[in-house]
Amino acid sequence: MPIDENATTLVTAFDNVPAFARGMVRDLRVRWALEEIGRAYCPQFLDAMQPKPDAYRDWQPYGQVPAFADGDLRMFESGAILLYLGEQDERLLSRDPDRRWAAVSWLIAALNSVEPALMQIVTLDFFQARKPWAQEARPTAVEMARTRLAGTERALGDREWFAGAFSIADIAMASVLRNIAHTEILAEFPALAAFRARCEARPAFRRALEDQLAGYREPA
Amino acid sequence: MPIDENATTLVTAFDNVPAFARGMVRDLRVRWALEEIGRAYCPQFLDAMQPKPDAYRDWQPYGQVPAFADGDLRMFESGAILLYLGEQDERLLSRDPDRRWAAVSWLIAALNSVEPALMQIVTLDFFQARKPWAQEARPTAVEMARTRLAGTERALGDREWFAGAFSIADIAMASVLRNIAHTEILAEFPALAAFRARCEARPAFRRALEDQLAGYREPA
Repeated sequence: MPIDENATTLVTAFDNVPAFARGMVRDLRVRWALEEIGRAYCPQFLDAMQPKPDAYRDWQPYGQVPAFADGDLRMFESGAILLYLGEQDERLLSRDPDRRWAAVSWLIAALNSVEPALMQIVTLDFFQARKPWAQEARPTAVEMARTRLAGTERALGDREWFAGAFSIADIAMASVLRNIAHTEILAEFPALAAFRARCEARPAFRRALEDQLAGYREPA
Repeated sequence: MPIDENATTLVTAFDNVPAFARGMVRDLRVRWALEEIGRAYCPQFLDAMQPKPDAYRDWQPYGQVPAFADGDLRMFESGAILLYLGEQDERLLSRDPDRRWAAVSWLIAALNSVEPALMQIVTLDFFQARKPWAQEARPTAVEMARTRLAGTERALGDREWFAGAFSIADIAMASVLRNIAHTEILAEFPALAAFRARCEARPAFRRALEDQLAGYREPA
């Protein structure tokens, strides 16, 4: 287990989130990448329910997690941190230009074309569940999500990973697809459902998830 | 004007979009970056209103624009193409590691933290305007957008650009902020409103916008 209290690689995480968010918070994406390359890191915990101090907002402007440090270098946004780690280790991002830029294309597709559509369902189902219009708005959100998932499924086809070898694109896409694990929608897309299962079976993913869940102060 | 019919750098664009989308479609982000470095390209036009052929979906899995080619290398997603161009020219992405990774952090923040919140307003105001719940859902969307904009405004402060020198982060963030140009919301955030104006005053932006608008077959 590469968690190391003395590491100079820091990843911020929450030690207290609602039950539905456990195993979903985005520090998992960075922990997973670090596990894939066996790199030690030290988690730094914040309480999701408390206001964030200005010093933290200077590091992560939205008061979210993860923020990341590698020695003196500070970053935020899990997608950006994945790109940084990919640049350091070809097990996360190929040095072959075609594969490399396909992986970057798919990483951004996960974050900017697929995740916003899926998060709309999460927002309606959890954060806006008590709004009088949430149920009425849901079918339109599901339809939009299906459109994005269909394009993604067609592109993956019978390939194992999105850009040749396993890469940060797969970490991003699998993490994004996990957002709708509380629904049955992904089962309509068998290639994507199998892809998600393939990612979740990786030892690095399982260790990262276990470590994230072990960080919560209270049982769910 | 670096549009060149013989260029090996290709950018796909629509030649027909509804009036509200003119000047907003994401090929503008790539055209702008190319103008900043004076790099010639050839636009390849598609009709936004027509189904996209499979051959195009093999290049851009969602049938959207822009897709991009540099000789044999093919990419999609404007954010990914900005990263590619940034890697080729330090006028778009600094070689200094602190500035470089700050720019990547802010590029991803624009695409994954700010744009989804702002696009929710665009979706309600244009694509879902006739839904019975669109008006009811709008205040919640505006509140979420304000939260993200406030964090972004605080982080920019009185700086000119998001990551030291002008970079792909500024192209991404300014383009994202332009999404809500049909509202008065950005005026509540004077640093961001000034930043947007500063970006739109750049000759490269103006040339890119002019060229995008000139590509539409019919007057708005």
